[in-house]
Parts: sequence; structure tokens; C-alpha cells
Amino acid sequence: MALLPIKTVGVIGAGLMGASWTALFLAKGLQVIVTDPAPGAKEMLHDFLNERWPTMARLGIKHGASLDNYKFVPDISAYLGHIDFVQENGPERLDFKRKLFAHLDSNTREHVILASSSSGLPSSQFVTDCKRNPARVLIGHPFNPPHLVPLVEVVPNPNTGTAYVKAALEFYRGLDKEPVLVNRETPGFVANRLQAALCAEAYSLISRGIVSARDLDKTVTSGIGLRWALNGPIMTNVLGGGRDFKYFMNHLGPALKTWSDDMRDHEFDFSREKIDVLDKIVQEWVSTVDIDGVERKRDNYIVGMINNESDASI
Amino acid sequence: MALLPIKTVGVIGAGLMGASWTALFLAKGLQVIVTDPAPGAKEMLHDFLNERWPTMARLGIKHGASLDNYKFVPDISAYLGHIDFVQENGPERLDFKRKLFAHLDSNTREHVILASSSSGLPSSQFVTDCKRNPARVLIGHPFNPPHLVPLVEVVPNPNTGTAYVKAALEFYRGLDKEPVLVNRETPGFVANRLQAALCAEAYSLISRGIVSARDLDKTVTSGIGLRWALNGPIMTNVLGGGRDFKYFMNHLGPALKTWSDDMRDHEFDFSREKIDVLDKIVQEWVSTVDIDGVERKRDNYIVGMINNESDASI
Repeated sequence: MALLPIKTVGVIGAGLMGASWTALFLAKGLQVIVTDPAPGAKEMLHDFLNERWPTMARLGIKHGASLDNYKFVPDISAYLGHIDFVQENGPERLDFKRKLFAHLDSNTREHVILASSSSGLPSSQFVTDCKRNPARVLIGHPFNPPHLVPLVEVVPNPNTGTAYVKAALEFYRGLDKEPVLVNRETPGFVANRLQAALCAEAYSLISRGIVSARDLDKTVTSGIGLRWALNGPIMTNVLGGGRDFKYFMNHLGPALKTWSDDMRDHEFDFSREKIDVLDKIVQEWVSTVDIDGVERKRDNYIVGMINNESDASI
Repeated sequence: MALLPIKTVGVIGAGLMGASWTALFLAKGLQVIVTDPAPGAKEMLHDFLNERWPTMARLGIKHGASLDNYKFVPDISAYLGHIDFVQENGPERLDFKRKLFAHLDSNTREHVILASSSSGLPSSQFVTDCKRNPARVLIGHPFNPPHLVPLVEVVPNPNTGTAYVKAALEFYRGLDKEPVLVNRETPGFVANRLQAALCAEAYSLISRGIVSARDLDKTVTSGIGLRWALNGPIMTNVLGGGRDFKYFMNHLGPALKTWSDDMRDHEFDFSREKIDVLDKIVQEWVSTVDIDGVERKRDNYIVGMINNESDASI
């Protein structure tokens, strides 16, 4: 099996996700063929890329990279034979993805990796109609927006070939992404589960009146998130235990269990009534916030933090 | 009731927490009286402060602030009448704290706030022997290390006076901290509960072999944490719903509930067996990591992020 050097990427679906992937691929010096059947997709992609290019420049554009190295096509079929890697960002519909991946499998060269950005559908569910080489189908799930946030979850299905998993990890790593390997398909993969675990408790605390929505967010931005942007929860535990995870678990484990039990006793149940209570509290806060400012700040901040991390690692 | 201007802070307990609070108070131009009965405490505090002062200087030292504005005393009793705010960091033992707070309550001026850094004991449990003015006792729980991380959880007990709560929030805000108000005593307050919620799922995913310990941490540092250092989970949901939290909940709520249910089905039970399995996996990774480097990087990074945030808010 010979895996090709990846020079040309096919991007299927040019919504927010596909457009953002395209910005990243271009900045890293790749050629990109993009398709999307939505009306106005070509123009929206053009505007998106032109708006984001200065940010990509701040993060560092690869030698030879150009904003002109992409081609928007109404139908990608004729180009599939020349594409070295597919990043799919179509709708989260099983019937759609099944047909699409069967088509991609029939029309790309045999060892071209077919990666889906899907967060909701594991690839085992839509690889079913691929007859030629289903072993090269996997999930490459980015964290929004992929042109800025380094995380990509690579999730094989039980029949994905190890060589393709390894090659996908290497490809994303070569784009300065931080791919993680999710060994087995599991609902929500890893990132969404971790987020959901914290969010569910956040919803419970706010709707029970323990803390305001604003202060809940501040608890994360001024404490937990600040720390977790550098060291993950496990390394944080290791440092908290004087470099000894076992020591941490023996000493803090009982408290963690007490809190976990109390959280389960007050679990947010996602009922319509509970969501209404929560929503009312959240709206009261959000209506006082300058959301334009929040959105403007976000991209600048992520770029700053990525640069700060590069500085810190020297 | 006349709340005093706070010029002199009493720090009780000069372990890591008390020493770090002292560094912060000094950098913000306050006078500090510190006590700790442990052998060598005076010298350890001296070394800690001298090592951290350059970092405090990078973050910005207030006009008039000096590393010399503290006094280590073997017994603080004689000084209590001159202290304007107490930050207590003693051992997490109920009998100890009950006696200590009764002593502080008898010997400080009536409206001086008595704040405990305790994360484990709610103040309702140790305010019991205060006869004079128990209404000024509350929790001011920092996030380690307090000289760097802005978060402080202010937790009143049911008998804490509103004016003292307000004054404590103002005091911490004046030190450029980000205090949050936890309206009711609840096990783990807010920050530790949110952390525990995510950690419990992290332990489950790692011990089930879904993801490696290293990649679990990377999922947080390269994705979730990076995002949460800027916008908290609620604002992230609001932006994810096109500025509409209700829209987000209506569309993502069902998925969140599915993941929550699956997480409960695979809940980490903190049993000795499960902790052993988890610990073995974590140790395999940690033994390959340069922990000295990780610790060195941490302080620099937090300083960098705090400065980055200040820049971004302009």
C-alpha cells in the first residue's frame, strides 16, 4: 500500500466548517478543490477566505501558500481522480453521507483518505455502501473554527486500516494541528463528551440559583479554562498531587466522589421546563452583553494564545 | 456600619496558598502581617516571595508596593486590632477553624471581614463559636496559585451579612482578581464541581481505553480549554446558537442529553480497582514527560495569557 504525498485536498461542503478548513489548507500551502451545491456558496467562500486571510497571515503562512490556490467547482466528480485527501463537511444525514462516501470511494484513487468532519455520525454508519476500499474512511472532527483551533479528533471505525489512521494523524500534524486519536467510536467522541459533562453541571448550578450565568462563565474564563489552556485535567491532577497522580486520587478522590454524587442528585434533566428556567436566566445576562464585541475579541484572542503558546515552548 | 478602607491584611497560614496570597497583597500595595506556626515557615515565605517577585513585576506592581511591606510574626494576636481584612489558610480541620475564627472574631475590630480560603469546609460549619459579629465571616476561595489566577469564589453562609459580601467582592476586584459570588453553600462550590464533572468523564474515557491520557489532556489544551479561557460554556453555547441560547438548547439539547445518559451508563465509580487501572495508564504517560519543564512553563504561560487578555480588551 502506497500512501500519496498530499498536495491537493478536496473539500466537500463549504459552510462555516468547510470554508474554515479551506482557509487552513490554503495557508499551509495546499491546493484545494471545493464544492457546495448551496446557492451563493462560491461567493460566500470567497468573502470568508478574504476576511480570514489577514488572521492566517498573523499565524504564519507557509512558503508558496496563496489565497488563489483554490478552485470552487459546482461538481467535484471530474476532479476526484486528482485529489490526495478528502475532507467532507456535508449535512449530518445518514442517507446523504452513505451515498456520498460510496461515490467518493468509487471515484478517488484507492488509498486516498476520506475524512468526515462529522461530530454526530460515526463513520461505521455511513461507510456501509463503500465497495472499493472502505478501510480509508474515518472521522477527522475539528473544533470550531478549524482554521484557528488546533484540535482534530481522528476516529476510526472498527474496519478503518491502521495505516490510514496513522497517515491522517500525520497529515493533520503537518498542518500544525493537534490531532488526538479516539480509539473507539463513542457517542460525542471525546471533546463533546467532556464539554457536555461540564455544561450539564453548569446548567444545573445556574437553574438552581447557586450562581449567575455571568459568574458561571467567569469561573471558567478566570480560573478553570485559563489553567486548562496550558495543562489538561490529568496533568493538572498530577501537579496537584506533587507529581503523583495516585497521591492526588487517594487524597482528593473521596471529595471528588462526594461532589459527583451530589451532582447526580441535582442532575439537569434537559426537560422543557428546566430549559425554560435556564434560558430565562441566561437571556437576562446575555441581553446586557455586547455580543459583537465578544465575537470580534474571540479570533484575536485565539491567535494571541496560539502565539503565546509557541513563545512559551521555546 | 462603617467598613474600613483596607490597608493591612492578616494572612493566617503561610503554606503555598497563604504565601501566594501574600505575594498578591504585597504587589497590590498592601501591608501584610503573616503568621504560621510551622518550623521554617518564615524562611520558606521569604524564599517564595523573592522567587515570585519578578513574575509579579511582569504583571505590574502597584505604585508604593514593596516586597518589604510584610511582617512574619510567630503570634498574630497582638496585631489583630490593626488588621483591616483577614485571609485565613489554616488546615482543613473543623475544630481548628472553629477555635481560630472565635479568636479572630473576639480580637479584630467589629466590621473587619474574616475570609477563609477553605475549599472543603463551608463557613456555616466553623462560624459556630463566633459570638461578636459572625456576619462578617465568609469564604474567599482562590484558585491555585492565587498570585496568578484571577478567580476567587466568594461564598457567604446563610448568616453572612450582604454588606460584607459586597465589600469582599469589591476588595478582591480592587486587587484585579475576578471574584464570583456563590449564592449558597454547596459541596465543592462552583469551580471544583465543574472541574470534577469534566474530570470524572475524563477518568472514565481513559480507563475504558477510548483515549490515551496524553490525548485526553491534548483534547482540553488544544480545543476546549483554549476556547474556555476566553468565553465560558454559556457564552460559547450562545455563540454556537447564532447568539440564541434557546436555539442552541433546542438543537443541541437532545444530543447533550444522549451523551449525558451514555456518560452516566459508564460513570467512573472511584473504586480502588478503577483508580488502579486509571493510575497505571496515567503513570505510563507521565513517566515520559519532563515535569520540571511543565512546571516552569506554567507560571510564564499564565502571565502571558493574563497580559494577552488585557491587550485584547483594549
